[in-house]
Amino acid sequence: MKYVFGVDIGGTTVKMGLLSENGECLDKWEIKTVKDNGGEKILPDVAASIKEKIAEKGIDIADVIGVGAGVPGPVDSKGVVHKAVNLGWDTFNAAETLSKLTGLKAMIGNDANVAALGEMWKGGGAGYADVVMVTLGTGVGGGIIVDGKIVSGSSGAGGEIGHMHVKDGETIACGCGNFGCLEQYTSATGISRTASEMFAKWDKSTVLTKDDLSAKAVFDGVKAGDELCIEVAKEFGETLGKGLALIAAVVNPEVFVIGGGVSKAGEILLSYITPSFDKYAFHGCKNAKMVLATLGNDAGMYGAAKLVIE
Amino acid sequence: MKYVFGVDIGGTTVKMGLLSENGECLDKWEIKTVKDNGGEKILPDVAASIKEKIAEKGIDIADVIGVGAGVPGPVDSKGVVHKAVNLGWDTFNAAETLSKLTGLKAMIGNDANVAALGEMWKGGGAGYADVVMVTLGTGVGGGIIVDGKIVSGSSGAGGEIGHMHVKDGETIACGCGNFGCLEQYTSATGISRTASEMFAKWDKSTVLTKDDLSAKAVFDGVKAGDELCIEVAKEFGETLGKGLALIAAVVNPEVFVIGGGVSKAGEILLSYITPSFDKYAFHGCKNAKMVLATLGNDAGMYGAAKLVIE
Repeated sequence: MKYVFGVDIGGTTVKMGLLSENGECLDKWEIKTVKDNGGEKILPDVAASIKEKIAEKGIDIADVIGVGAGVPGPVDSKGVVHKAVNLGWDTFNAAETLSKLTGLKAMIGNDANVAALGEMWKGGGAGYADVVMVTLGTGVGGGIIVDGKIVSGSSGAGGEIGHMHVKDGETIACGCGNFGCLEQYTSATGISRTASEMFAKWDKSTVLTKDDLSAKAVFDGVKAGDELCIEVAKEFGETLGKGLALIAAVVNPEVFVIGGGVSKAGEILLSYITPSFDKYAFHGCKNAKMVLATLGNDAGMYGAAKLVIE
Repeated sequence: MKYVFGVDIGGTTVKMGLLSENGECLDKWEIKTVKDNGGEKILPDVAASIKEKIAEKGIDIADVIGVGAGVPGPVDSKGVVHKAVNLGWDTFNAAETLSKLTGLKAMIGNDANVAALGEMWKGGGAGYADVVMVTLGTGVGGGIIVDGKIVSGSSGAGGEIGHMHVKDGETIACGCGNFGCLEQYTSATGISRTASEMFAKWDKSTVLTKDDLSAKAVFDGVKAGDELCIEVAKEFGETLGKGLALIAAVVNPEVFVIGGGVSKAGEILLSYITPSFDKYAFHGCKNAKMVLATLGNDAGMYGAAKLVIE
């Protein structure tokens, strides 16, 4: 059996996995992300943990294909990370460094892109080669897979779909500095903001309270048939469906995989996105399927492993 | 020397080229597109013309790498054309047919995508591998090149950027049936429509007349400093720049190549697109260059030839 390590480096913890080359997870564990001194210990810690695991399992190093890692920042196709603020990293070739430290073939990808690859390999997008993953969390991230390969983009900004301009006339700036980004309306934060604005004007009964206008509260309310929550969900779905239609006209995927915290709402989420997608999508792109992500927080670990298996 | 044939199949004529494998055009000519009986003669005519040229030049068939062809319709990665209305074609594997007829390796691509490949190889995008080509003609077409390869899309609708939704509240339908498509504002037809709408309300002097509100007249007027024409050009640039920023957030190209009839206006065209692109683009994507196409009607021939050279 051949082995591969999949590593998902986050700002707080590093999720690590030992997988077979077929994508069976044999072991998974976490180590702490030590961000001191520009995050200089992060990759050495990862390498040490891999070596320990190899020793613990009595694995012959010749049977290890390599190690892949996802990082929260732009990464180009050569494995150069162009700053990862949440790790304290400046620009450097993280793939080369990780390879030297481990003695293994190493590949690096952006975390959202790598999660997309994971979902394509073993999750909601399994069986497809042209996949767009949309991660609805605090922000909105994306990963574009064309013919089984991540579209990193010329400066590592491929799949930055949270920053597509979808609304004119916005007066509040997005975290990126622009106005009217997809993320401002369809992230957990964006849904909560819409709920807050609609709640302030709402004069009928609702299960929402001013103390909890979270995306979770909204979709719980939708399931309970709450009228205000349904209005908020409609607004969310209208905007996200429009955004996905824009993406479809560019790369014409087979499937959209919807993940991130907001996707925990389940299938009902998709029922709000699909009508808008159908309205705005070019007829040649309407065939795209819409599914939920299935790997949760493990998507990055699977996708990172997949990075090194070609 | 190795040879390759590049063929651009249009609704009226087929443009054909004999090229060296380095992309030097050795000969080019045209044949008529005979569309009778579902266009059944088109590929046999192309094959016969290729065989004639091989005989005429005394080329050893072992030195011919193959033949590539661009067609006006969706084409998947296997060379299956999914209907090409302008040729009378239904769905069939045109690559297989052309290969059988010529005895050569044959590849087929969508004409807009193939033109993008041509501009990447020998035109405005030469030297780049991540290219988005935008063709501003009667409609708006596009071609997405990632890492040197065309993004055909899962149903051949990759790069259908003319049908990205960029304006809410549009009351006139696009040719595709949707409302508010990029093509409705930034094609030659779209520019002319904007000119017509603005002309009707204009009460100052202008070089435009109601008999000629064409895109060419508008950009000629811009060059002459005409105030109305400049307003029309600003509106065009605002919309197209926004559209290109949307594309950039998906595939993060190195360069946008602007072609088609409207691009004959020259560099001044770019000066209206760039400010809007800079306004709407995600900061990580702003580095994209904006250049004019240089191959004109030969882009398809070059790109078709490039299809078979790997």
